[in-house]
Amino acid sequence: MMDRLAARIEQGRGAAPADLVLKGGQVFDLVTGRISRSDVAICGDTIVGTLDTYSGVKEIDVTGKVIVPGFIDTHCHVESSLISPAEFDRCLLPRGITTAICDPHEIANVLGLAGIAYFLDAAGATAMDLRVNLSSCVPATDLETSGARIAAEDLIGLADHPKVIGLAEFMNFPGVLGRDPGCLAKLAAFAGRHIDGHAPLLRGRALNGYLAAGIRTDHEATTAEEAMEKLAKGMTVLIREGSVSKDLHALHSLVTEALSPYIAFCTDDRNPLDIAEEGHIDHMIRESIRLGATPLAAYRTASHSGARAFGLRDRGLVAPGYRADLVVLDDLNTCAVSRVISAGRLVGDDLFATRRMVQPIGRHSVKAQRVEERDFAARGAGPSTRVIGVVPGKIITLDLPMTLPYRDGERRIDLDQDAVKVAVVARHGHNRNISVAFVHGFGMTRGAIASSVGHDSHNICVVGAREADMAVAVNRLIEIEGGFAVACDGEVRAELALPMAGLMSLGTFEDVHADLLPLRAAAKALGVALDEPFLQVAFLPLPVIPHLKITDRGLVDVDRFELVRD
Amino acid sequence: MMDRLAARIEQGRGAAPADLVLKGGQVFDLVTGRISRSDVAICGDTIVGTLDTYSGVKEIDVTGKVIVPGFIDTHCHVESSLISPAEFDRCLLPRGITTAICDPHEIANVLGLAGIAYFLDAAGATAMDLRVNLSSCVPATDLETSGARIAAEDLIGLADHPKVIGLAEFMNFPGVLGRDPGCLAKLAAFAGRHIDGHAPLLRGRALNGYLAAGIRTDHEATTAEEAMEKLAKGMTVLIREGSVSKDLHALHSLVTEALSPYIAFCTDDRNPLDIAEEGHIDHMIRESIRLGATPLAAYRTASHSGARAFGLRDRGLVAPGYRADLVVLDDLNTCAVSRVISAGRLVGDDLFATRRMVQPIGRHSVKAQRVEERDFAARGAGPSTRVIGVVPGKIITLDLPMTLPYRDGERRIDLDQDAVKVAVVARHGHNRNISVAFVHGFGMTRGAIASSVGHDSHNICVVGAREADMAVAVNRLIEIEGGFAVACDGEVRAELALPMAGLMSLGTFEDVHADLLPLRAAAKALGVALDEPFLQVAFLPLPVIPHLKITDRGLVDVDRFELVRD
Repeated sequence: MMDRLAARIEQGRGAAPADLVLKGGQVFDLVTGRISRSDVAICGDTIVGTLDTYSGVKEIDVTGKVIVPGFIDTHCHVESSLISPAEFDRCLLPRGITTAICDPHEIANVLGLAGIAYFLDAAGATAMDLRVNLSSCVPATDLETSGARIAAEDLIGLADHPKVIGLAEFMNFPGVLGRDPGCLAKLAAFAGRHIDGHAPLLRGRALNGYLAAGIRTDHEATTAEEAMEKLAKGMTVLIREGSVSKDLHALHSLVTEALSPYIAFCTDDRNPLDIAEEGHIDHMIRESIRLGATPLAAYRTASHSGARAFGLRDRGLVAPGYRADLVVLDDLNTCAVSRVISAGRLVGDDLFATRRMVQPIGRHSVKAQRVEERDFAARGAGPSTRVIGVVPGKIITLDLPMTLPYRDGERRIDLDQDAVKVAVVARHGHNRNISVAFVHGFGMTRGAIASSVGHDSHNICVVGAREADMAVAVNRLIEIEGGFAVACDGEVRAELALPMAGLMSLGTFEDVHADLLPLRAAAKALGVALDEPFLQVAFLPLPVIPHLKITDRGLVDVDRFELVRD
Repeated sequence: MMDRLAARIEQGRGAAPADLVLKGGQVFDLVTGRISRSDVAICGDTIVGTLDTYSGVKEIDVTGKVIVPGFIDTHCHVESSLISPAEFDRCLLPRGITTAICDPHEIANVLGLAGIAYFLDAAGATAMDLRVNLSSCVPATDLETSGARIAAEDLIGLADHPKVIGLAEFMNFPGVLGRDPGCLAKLAAFAGRHIDGHAPLLRGRALNGYLAAGIRTDHEATTAEEAMEKLAKGMTVLIREGSVSKDLHALHSLVTEALSPYIAFCTDDRNPLDIAEEGHIDHMIRESIRLGATPLAAYRTASHSGARAFGLRDRGLVAPGYRADLVVLDDLNTCAVSRVISAGRLVGDDLFATRRMVQPIGRHSVKAQRVEERDFAARGAGPSTRVIGVVPGKIITLDLPMTLPYRDGERRIDLDQDAVKVAVVARHGHNRNISVAFVHGFGMTRGAIASSVGHDSHNICVVGAREADMAVAVNRLIEIEGGFAVACDGEVRAELALPMAGLMSLGTFEDVHADLLPLRAAAKALGVALDEPFLQVAFLPLPVIPHLKITDRGLVDVDRFELVRD
């Protein structure tokens, strides 16, 4: 360390050539807002000189370009990109995302601490700085059967790992407000450390109670008014633009120079199609500016403010002593990335080729038994029932009272009312639960869609207009160790295998992208009108998001936080 | 901890009365800038509810008043207030300074680690939250004889103490730039932790080299242009308003809403006269607003931004989950303090009476031998010499070439040129060094002023128009275990005893204030024209501030960082 410090000082003061110099560009300072002609001198992984001229052992001409600090995704689930951490790295780092703070909540729900350990190991091998918040709510609730349970004592043992920031989104807000002992034990264990929040629609004194527990951030605000209350109560608001939950349009009015020190960007759950077609944090910058934000507000939100909110004091500015995470832009307003530098290294295939390989884990995790058409019968006391109403592009659902066809003690699919079946099949080998209910809003007229991604316990969720196709789709997922499948007329029409814990592919992000396109087409061929049918299926079992959800134990009234007795 | 969390949540959500409620006031939110009608509910030491109505076990009516977060002094030396930490607490907390980050650099230079240990102990007993940055440069340089030496290995053992933030102002910037092994060892030991800066006039590539070592703040900027360069290089600029160094007028243009997230206030060295007559951080707020800052910019700089810069994530806003450090104001623009709450406790005599007593240390630390008139002879090779030029209200000095009366191999005092003698008498018992030189700018025509406060090694510094009076003043300091003394015509005219390490009084701040007034009058009676003669004497030996200084080893050319061979 002393040798490295000595080299940094020597190169910074110009007494020796820097290891690397970006010459002739302009630096965008996100504190003062000034854009200044400046070389950028780098020693090892650290910026050592700005606002001056430097010569270097290696020099790169960036004349005409603007240099900004690397972007930070302050909250994401890598698993939602359906690819391994190594592929996530290779997909996002070239877009300028030099730091991502992930919560391995999905794999932890399937594999427990082994899933978190896998991410900590993988984070040590990525070229980007992948940081980990420790999944706080595994299982998210007691209203479902997860693959694993993680207690406070399991988590605190990992708190000082160099890749760990703190406790990840505390989504069991009813548990916090109800002073559940397991929740309190986790909050107490991490008192004084970072604790991420998750408080959709929570306002007023309920929000105060949640914050009194020491929770500091929120990525669930969906209106500017809600976000302003959260800011005024000391939360850092993380504006989210995922694949299902897209909040940037509702919240872009916050991306001002005045508020930008107190907000950040995140993606939460973003799939390879959206990343390929729109981008990631780079897309959020671009879109914010298009919607009227100044570049200062947008780039500051995307980097320095996120770093400050999460205690990453070494990054977020192009300044001496800061980590050399840099994005060289052809154009500031469109966030047109020319080159990326990660910890002083040029990002490209050569850098990715040097990474240590991390072996996949979680094979053969889909432990459900084969199902049949009759497993999806919806027995009930009468024709009236509560139906989950999907909202396009939202993970919040509606709780719709409907009257369905009713014969032989069973409620039936009614395509005229757009009421098809939804079922959750337990797949962790703990039990053989299968719950069946109805969903409105897919527009599905035939076939079925199944997914082993089923937040947050990741049982199999299947939506179908025909029970036989539901069985075909689920059985195919069991064969391919999880993933997505579309079935129609007794045949599998498209599929994507996700054999790592039933959540992640063993292939490249290009492979996954290529497989998702025919899957999307196959879903549309069933009549489905939603833009993101697989993600909407995957979030139907998530019992921490209002209002009506389904787990392997049955329908859940999230507002009352209890199973529906029907 | 779980019980406390449960109580916070319950009171925050309004399910039980809060321990304490401030009712009927308005809360100033320093993120959004909004001032809103709001009760403030407090449970123990923590705010649990805002922007709502609450009832409490104890309620205080604050109708018509504005509630802001407690103020933070981000860098100070308690010793410069001449009082003990307990008296510092009693003096400042009622003004709203609920957090002070001190550097026990003065006592550490006299007593070494025992001085730091005393402050850590004392910090555990104050009602305010006194935090400690570990003195990084003891001695500040090798150009002087200090009472102690502290190495990297001594400091790192204290790094995880709950009151410790990091490494205090790294004032040996020439040592950093010269890659001095002792400096590098300290910087390396604290890599990744907070390292406070001190970089007067450092600019350009020299500043870059200093920052490349991982240093993050600076309180030495004296012009707005210098401060803007430091901000653009990622430093948090701490605007200082001490008793000698007063930078607020030069830097108030930074106190804007745009820059306020990235700056903070500090006092560095502030004496009881200024505190009594003007105030402290409260004065900086008042003065900033008077000079044109908005209340949002001023109060944010005084609290939340300082908290963020130093990693104090639990304070700086009036919001649920934050520490209940609150200032209730009669008037926002004049920072008229009505009441202060520290960690949920009402500040007043009752609170101060509950504090644990901490025994004074550092008695009998002035170990110099008695001096005589002839010890202050200024032998030299000829009449031309370099004279220290004091600048009123600044600790920077000028390096003035002068020609003095010269007889019998000695340079002589020349009142016509305002050139009087300055001497430093070593007092730590390591040697019997006495150095003698000349100083311009005091306007002194008779007598002498002596001080055992002599930054940073705290040898005795004496300035005199007559050598016999210099001896009288120094000998008196030896008798009273250090302090300040004014002598004239062979008699002591006024004095203040500072028996704790020769730096701090055993009395109250009211006692010290009362003693300083006749001292100031006695100094003026010598013809001295400076507003703060004792502080200007005390900073003459500080060899890390440009340009010409004096230590017990002789004149120091600070720009060249070497002793003057004359």
